[in-house]
This record gives sequence, structure tokens and C-alpha cells, in this order.
Amino acid sequence: MVLNYHYPHPFRLESGATLPALDIAYHTFGRRNPDGSNVIWVCHALTANSDVADWWPNTVVPGGFLDPEKYFIVCANIVGSHYGTTGPLSVNPETGRPWFDSFPEITVRDMVNAHRLLAEHLGIRRVRLLIGSSLGGFQCMEWALIDPDFAEKVALVATSAVSSPWAAAFNESQRMAIEADPTYGQPDPDAGRHGLEAARSIALLSYRGAPAYNLTQADRGASTDPDNMFRRRVHSYQRHQGEKLSARFNAYSYHRLSRAVDAHDIARNRAASVEEALKAFKPKALVIGITSDILFTLDDARRLADNIPGAQLETIESNFGHDGFLVEHKQLNTIICNFLSK
Amino acid sequence: MVLNYHYPHPFRLESGATLPALDIAYHTFGRRNPDGSNVIWVCHALTANSDVADWWPNTVVPGGFLDPEKYFIVCANIVGSHYGTTGPLSVNPETGRPWFDSFPEITVRDMVNAHRLLAEHLGIRRVRLLIGSSLGGFQCMEWALIDPDFAEKVALVATSAVSSPWAAAFNESQRMAIEADPTYGQPDPDAGRHGLEAARSIALLSYRGAPAYNLTQADRGASTDPDNMFRRRVHSYQRHQGEKLSARFNAYSYHRLSRAVDAHDIARNRAASVEEALKAFKPKALVIGITSDILFTLDDARRLADNIPGAQLETIESNFGHDGFLVEHKQLNTIICNFLSK
Repeated sequence: MVLNYHYPHPFRLESGATLPALDIAYHTFGRRNPDGSNVIWVCHALTANSDVADWWPNTVVPGGFLDPEKYFIVCANIVGSHYGTTGPLSVNPETGRPWFDSFPEITVRDMVNAHRLLAEHLGIRRVRLLIGSSLGGFQCMEWALIDPDFAEKVALVATSAVSSPWAAAFNESQRMAIEADPTYGQPDPDAGRHGLEAARSIALLSYRGAPAYNLTQADRGASTDPDNMFRRRVHSYQRHQGEKLSARFNAYSYHRLSRAVDAHDIARNRAASVEEALKAFKPKALVIGITSDILFTLDDARRLADNIPGAQLETIESNFGHDGFLVEHKQLNTIICNFLSK
Repeated sequence: MVLNYHYPHPFRLESGATLPALDIAYHTFGRRNPDGSNVIWVCHALTANSDVADWWPNTVVPGGFLDPEKYFIVCANIVGSHYGTTGPLSVNPETGRPWFDSFPEITVRDMVNAHRLLAEHLGIRRVRLLIGSSLGGFQCMEWALIDPDFAEKVALVATSAVSSPWAAAFNESQRMAIEADPTYGQPDPDAGRHGLEAARSIALLSYRGAPAYNLTQADRGASTDPDNMFRRRVHSYQRHQGEKLSARFNAYSYHRLSRAVDAHDIARNRAASVEEALKAFKPKALVIGITSDILFTLDDARRLADNIPGAQLETIESNFGHDGFLVEHKQLNTIICNFLSK
């Protein structure tokens, strides 16, 4: 069941803009120990939500690294998103109308600072494990640097200390597709819907890569049927995935969140370099890279592990690219349960 | 100087549709030997044109594999394109108005059959070398299978016997971006312009890959300047490349050509499998793959070389991905000159 925390005060963003108040949607699983020593905080990725048991299958299960019989698990929806936390479809209390395109730009630090308010509200000062994949990993490293004592351990899965030019090029292409849809900008929750569908189709390319596509969308090639000569199995897959996202998300949130991804740089106003920023990491860190991940590559994982003091690097073998973090739950459960029990 | 060949008869397409007539724009370089033994025919890729000296730098030069002092080089613009050969912006003689969105679907075989008419017109029955990269390579292999005696040698660069699901997913994403622009479909040469810009931005991702982006578009990450926190160097690069294409191409041609790419399958109505189709290859074949090419991968190159009888496989070391075929002219000149002189 989704819970809501209302923070009735102005919330200042890294850009200097201010949100008049905040709502934060969150889920919890399991029960907190009397001494509060069994808390795991999960940071979610781009279009996910606070219901980690739903989007991260086979992890919030007995024996999983998010075992609700052992741990008290918290996952909150990020600022700017679509699932209950303040975002572009929320009503701006100052105008009485949804923000839509007037919603301010946000950063990963804003996401973390909002969730720190929720942690304070819940009386959580320290967690056993802070974990996130992809944009979730961005939040974990920011949190560990903003409040070095918050997490005893941090697990960074399929993520990077800074968005690479390559990842930012993927995101810019997606925003160009959204903006090519002229309904984007209109005061309508469905604005930019077709552009968003194209954006999702582009994003999937970066989430999967050639091996996963050629494995899961194999066809003989073009059809021999003259009426279907131009039809490929993957065409309907891309359209279907686009429509699935546009039915559950909105283009304004997507645009803002993808800009936050591109602005991710743990060194910003903190250190002369990413390497130097990582040296200040205090929690015990586990870095997990996926062999076939073309979005946040093994090189990105190595850069994290090489510069976080005492970090442990583990590699997941997978053909599923970046999506391996959703698919390879067996390997994740083994690696992260080991890390938790050490 | 661009030349034009007008073919005044109906041209039947693989789909069953018919073009009432054909114009074919072409360039030639150098002089034909009296015995016609020094002809090289170049097939161009997606958005290129017949001026191979312009788009394939440092090849149509003394010592290059397209040395105009040694060879008579022909390159013709493909059907459906934008550079003088009949395409969506051409006037449909039956209506007196440009085809635009009513231009029929075309295939790689249609491109080859149109150019075979030009070869006949020019009195070229056999060439020393037939060469193409990417979609140009698709045409070369189709030509070699349609007319096994046309080419003595064939060079297939950064190409594949069939479009992979992965490549088709990239193309479908691009068409989704074009279609998200509702001006696409209007009877206007500029229709779908913003969608086309997004499509080009997507295509570039597949042409370059992570190493090339991270090499050529490196920045520190997000700016520390609060006014520029969200600005990345690669953002303006992607937009600029999109605008460059939309200034010189049109969305209708792009859409049709990318559909032709997805329908590329040398086995269609010819053999039970790609492997079997390749076994019928008669010209001596050189297959060149590029180490970092994520669009048509080394696996695609190996599949060609493993199945074309007597084929020679060469690998180009490059960080520039698929675009390596435009960048690595030194390696290409060495490999292809060797192949020509054998």
C-alpha cells in the first residue's frame, strides 16, 4: 500500500528554484527492529515507483536481499516523477493548476534531499543498506556523500559517478523526439504522448543492446510474404513498449527526470574530479556491473570501484544489458546477500 | 558534376507497385579503359549521394582504392533518395505533383535493379570491383546474387546479410520519432522536419557508440555553473547533427530508405537461409568489419565471410564504430588496394 508524507514547507532545489511544499509517496515492507538496525532503503530508477516488490521481481521475497521477514524496507518515489511524489502533474498550490511544463528542473541531489526529509519523518537516522540501480545508484552515491553516516553499506548496481556523453546523447535524442511532438507544452497530462512513445523506444535500445534484441526479437529477417515484406517482429515490440509507458507515465516527468540524469555529476561543487569526490565515500561499498550493459558500462563500474575506498566490485554475466539488473535476480540475490551478511 | 539518366518506362518494384518512369542521378570519376576493364561501381549508404569523392574523403585520390587515374568510378544515387534519383520529392507524372507520402515502399533489390538499368545504359556489363558500406554493402550483395557475372570482385564494408532485430529496432525508433511530428504526412518538402532531426540524433548513436562519444564529446560532466548545470556538450552536438540532416534531406526519403534497410534479407524468395543464399556468391569477396561497430557488428561480418565461398575477412581497428568506414580511410585504402591488386 502506498503511503504519503506531506512536507508543508518550501523545498529549495539545487537550481535555486523552490517547490512550495512536497508530497512524497513511499512503500515499506517488513517490520523495523526495536533498535532500528534492519532498515534497507531502496532508490528507484527512471520510470519506476515506490512499490519495489512490483518492479524488482524476486527480490522482496524470503531469501532475497530485500527479505521482508528480516528487513524493514523503504522505497520512496522520486521528486518529479509520476507516482505520488510532487511532479509536473501535481497541482502547484500557488496557481491551483498542475505544473505541467512549468515544473522546475530537478537534480539527483534534490531527489535525495526530499527523501532525507522522509527518513527524518520516519525517524530513520541510519540504514543497514542503501541500494539502487541506474538512476537509483546515482541517488545512493549522492546520499552517501551528503550524509556519510546515513548508510552502513551501499550497493551501486549498473550505475555511474557521472552521466557519460554517450548516455547524455541517448537522453538528448529522447527529448528531441518528445519535443518533435508539438502537443508537448500543452496543459494536458497526455501532452507529448507520441513523442514519449518514441523516447521510450529509444531508451529501450540503451537498456538492452544488440545481444538481448537479437536473442528475444529474433525473426528470420524480413518476411517472404510480399504483404509483410517490411514487417519485423521488433517493430511491434518497440511500438508496444512505447505505448505501455505512455499509458502509465507522462512526458513532462520523463523530460525532467532525463535532464536530472544528464546533470548527474557527483563532483559538482564538491571536488575537483569524480575520482576525488569518490575518495570521500565512507560507507562500505559494493559495486555491481553487468557484462553487456551498454548504458552504464563495466568501465563506469570499475571507475566507481577503483576510487571508492575499500569498494568491492562484482560482475553479473548477462545478455540483457542494463536491464540485467531486473532480469538477473538470482545473481543479485547471491551477491547482495553475501555483502549484507559480511 | 552530377549526370542524369532518364528511363522512360514503368519500373516495377519488388512490392508489386510501379513507378511510371525513373530518373537516376550519377557521378563518374576517371576514364574508362578501351576494354572497359577498370570500372569500379560504388554503392552509397542511407543519406549519401552519387558524389562519392565528397562523402568518402581520401578515397577518390591518387593512391586511394578509388584512384581516378587508374579506375573509372561510377556512383549513382539510390531510388527513394533525395539527390536526383526518383524519390518522394520527385513529381509523380501521373498526378503532376510530388509523391511525398504516396511514394511507394522500396527495397534494396529495387535500388539495385534501377542501377542495373543505368549500367546497361552506360554499356557496363562487368566491373572490376563493386563496393559498398552499410546499406551500400546491402546493394552489393544483392547485385552479386541477382547478376553473378556483373562483378569480378565485391567489397562489403561494415554491413550485414540481413538487418538484425537490433538494427531494425533503431530504425523503428527513428520512424516513431518522425511520426511523432504531425507535420509528417503533409504535402510539404519540410514535413516531419523536427521528427527527422530526432531520427538523425538516434541514428548517430548507432553510428558511433560509447567509445566515440566519450572520446569526441568529453566534458567534465554536468557544469558547475548553476546556470548551465543541465547543459552537456553532447546536447548541442546531437541537435546540430539533426539540423544538418534536415537542411539537406527530407523525412519521406528517410522513412522509405530506413524501411528498405529493415526489409533487407538476401535470402528472401531466394534460399531457405541467409547462409544458403551466401553460398551462391560468385565474385571474389572481401568482407571488412570494424571492431567498435555496434550497428553492423563483427559477428555480422563473420557471418558473411564464413558463408561466402572463398571470402577474405579483414578487421579495421577503430574507436569510431560504424562511422569508422568514413574515418579510417588509411586502413581501407591499404586493405582494398591489396584486394584489387591480387
